Amino acid sequence: MSQSMLALNNFAAAGMSALDPVERSLLERRSRTFGSGVPLFYARPLNFVRAEGVWMFDHEGRRYLDAYNNVPSVGHCHPHVVAAIARQAAQLNTHTRYLSDVVSSYAERLLGYFAAPLSRVLFTSSGTESVDLALRMAQYQTGGTGLVVTRFAYHGHSMAVAQITPAFGSGVALGAHVRTVAAPDGFRGTGPVAENFAAAVQAAIDDLERHGIGFAALVTDTLFTSDGVFADPAGFLRPAVDAVHRAGGLYVADEVQPGFGRTGSGMWGYSRHGIVPDIVVMGKPMGNGMPIAAVVTRAEILESLAAHTGYFNTFGGNTVCCAAAAAVLDVIEQESLIARAARVGGVLRSGVAALQARYPVIGDVRGAGLYLGVEIVAAADGQSPDTAAALRIVNGLRERQILISTCGAEGNVLKIRPPLQFSEENAAQLLEEIESLLRQG
Amino acid sequence: MSQSMLALNNFAAAGMSALDPVERSLLERRSRTFGSGVPLFYARPLNFVRAEGVWMFDHEGRRYLDAYNNVPSVGHCHPHVVAAIARQAAQLNTHTRYLSDVVSSYAERLLGYFAAPLSRVLFTSSGTESVDLALRMAQYQTGGTGLVVTRFAYHGHSMAVAQITPAFGSGVALGAHVRTVAAPDGFRGTGPVAENFAAAVQAAIDDLERHGIGFAALVTDTLFTSDGVFADPAGFLRPAVDAVHRAGGLYVADEVQPGFGRTGSGMWGYSRHGIVPDIVVMGKPMGNGMPIAAVVTRAEILESLAAHTGYFNTFGGNTVCCAAAAAVLDVIEQESLIARAARVGGVLRSGVAALQARYPVIGDVRGAGLYLGVEIVAAADGQSPDTAAALRIVNGLRERQILISTCGAEGNVLKIRPPLQFSEENAAQLLEEIESLLRQG
Repeated sequence: MSQSMLALNNFAAAGMSALDPVERSLLERRSRTFGSGVPLFYARPLNFVRAEGVWMFDHEGRRYLDAYNNVPSVGHCHPHVVAAIARQAAQLNTHTRYLSDVVSSYAERLLGYFAAPLSRVLFTSSGTESVDLALRMAQYQTGGTGLVVTRFAYHGHSMAVAQITPAFGSGVALGAHVRTVAAPDGFRGTGPVAENFAAAVQAAIDDLERHGIGFAALVTDTLFTSDGVFADPAGFLRPAVDAVHRAGGLYVADEVQPGFGRTGSGMWGYSRHGIVPDIVVMGKPMGNGMPIAAVVTRAEILESLAAHTGYFNTFGGNTVCCAAAAAVLDVIEQESLIARAARVGGVLRSGVAALQARYPVIGDVRGAGLYLGVEIVAAADGQSPDTAAALRIVNGLRERQILISTCGAEGNVLKIRPPLQFSEENAAQLLEEIESLLRQG
Repeated sequence: MSQSMLALNNFAAAGMSALDPVERSLLERRSRTFGSGVPLFYARPLNFVRAEGVWMFDHEGRRYLDAYNNVPSVGHCHPHVVAAIARQAAQLNTHTRYLSDVVSSYAERLLGYFAAPLSRVLFTSSGTESVDLALRMAQYQTGGTGLVVTRFAYHGHSMAVAQITPAFGSGVALGAHVRTVAAPDGFRGTGPVAENFAAAVQAAIDDLERHGIGFAALVTDTLFTSDGVFADPAGFLRPAVDAVHRAGGLYVADEVQPGFGRTGSGMWGYSRHGIVPDIVVMGKPMGNGMPIAAVVTRAEILESLAAHTGYFNTFGGNTVCCAAAAAVLDVIEQESLIARAARVGGVLRSGVAALQARYPVIGDVRGAGLYLGVEIVAAADGQSPDTAAALRIVNGLRERQILISTCGAEGNVLKIRPPLQFSEENAAQLLEEIESLLRQG
């Protein structure tokens, strides 16, 4: 089997001896209910009992700096969001088969972050449901089924979406209607990123057509986070999207990771590339932990779905999740979190770049705003992925009470993705502890 | 196109003139954001702004008796559940990659409602995600892909699950690996329900095998609610499940509708049939509106999934949804809601049966606990579905401020499915208004 992203930074039985009785008991109870299939972070897992802003607390009251979790994007347990949830849960929690000002107001507000012709939204309960729905729309709109994704993409876990998620590894078969292309990797790749990526996408489309499979869509994360975080040069997506459109296909922008301001340059990752997707899917940070996700698209794409079938999702767009999501937008705006992501992300990035100059195990630092990928490589050649060293840093930071993880096909890229309330002071602490670990070698 | 369940009891443009300015404005805003594909209940839609127990209130303060909504199963905005949500949202909302007493305690408690060998659970965010995951498990466990469902079944809206959901109508293609069988209809069917159903399932399995499609699973709602509510004689599922097992397949019990006490005879609909499913999926009422759902199965079925891939679901089993779901179990137990469903459901059913004796448009009344199906038929023959008459009753009750809907392939079966706090007094009010409408003819 090839590497699975579910195996990155996972608990290993060897870590058992380091657990205290509380953790050990929880681990055993977990195995007896979840079995062995649900991944658990860290060689020595963590048990959190409360959280606030960028801090998480375990059962001993130990405080951890969260530089990993992007779902509580405006900060763990943000009081404005918590109040909105509590208020709406006490008033009404219902579905979209009734009229609702709460739901329509949120839909209008969310669409306000998109330019024409992206003017329609459907709500779901997860990024997976949103990607799955986007695939149905793309099939109905184009009449094709062929899909192109990057080589270590993660898009979700439903049966249809798992077929376009190579990050699950070889245990989960890709669909016969799916082609993968190399991620737009400016670090290991040679030649111009934009042209290379467009050529790879075109070749994949040609191959689909050669097999009699009509092309439906290119689906990518606009930050390529599972592949290892590829952000630059901004604009590189444009030629590939042009090729997709020339072939009569759609471009589906997966904004589950980059969306809601994380890139520090607008609400959506795609805007860095000067493109307009045909379909945009979003999820994780949308409700700061409440299960809400969405698909935004053009009116005619939605109507081509509606011509085949209506769409109703029991929990999708329920009033409580919409109230939470509206509060998230309040906080993003009131606390200027997009500007903050740019500012603090910049501090973090230049800090890592300064470390890179002194520690050759840092092969590359890249990303946008508060989403950073840091390549850990063999010092000898500055290129070969060093997964073990990356894991040592992740687990070392865990012992120093800082949370990050890894990504990329080789699992050697540090994934730094804190709540957007992360401060310059938090960034300094993270940089200091990384340096301390690098000094130890 | 064949009838779609999404078209049952829907808004029709003709109802527009009856709307007040508030409703009209909401309807227009909804169309501009959702397009035309999201179904809206009633010829004259409703706008709810708050709810409590079995009551929902519109913007004019008009009070509606809810005899329809099964998601807020322990009552709209139940204070015990609302308090649990508010408390946990303020404390910690995180995912299952950390240890958590909140999550493990709920998992243990939920599994306590199942007998061995059903001892493992995975959490998801919707019934759709749960059915989709069950299909993946069934494929990995059996090596087959063939699935058997009933003729107007609804199981969910992901691409894979839509392929086993004939209730979407002919606009959505069933999978080539899917066979449908007539629902176990003791009203229109002839001969013994159990034997007929088992024979139909066996024939479908044989047909799959004849086409070289290995049989994986029979998937049914244990109350056949979308098909029109078929509950009796209790035990009729057993021969079909035996046939499934003889063929090496799995039986997947979809408890999204009947689960969590609604049938009035235990937590799960399947227990009325004296069977043990291989996989059980549940959703809607689990968190009283919070998006949480689950798959319960045997250890070896979960491990056969784990042998191919881990399972991680970002929102699935988050601490806030688990806290809400635990509070739902508290209420079911503390308020003896299962016994109440049996008692009040019995009152309702005998009340409708009494009406049936006097009004021949009631062809049949059936169900279990607080899930009733009432066949509206042509008085002339007592058999032919009268969809228009059923819709007149649903819309007539809406004008009398009572909520129900319809189900069944012909949309002529009244679907009565109130929150479990429904009282004898509520039942009397519903019966009185139904009779008043029947008197008018």
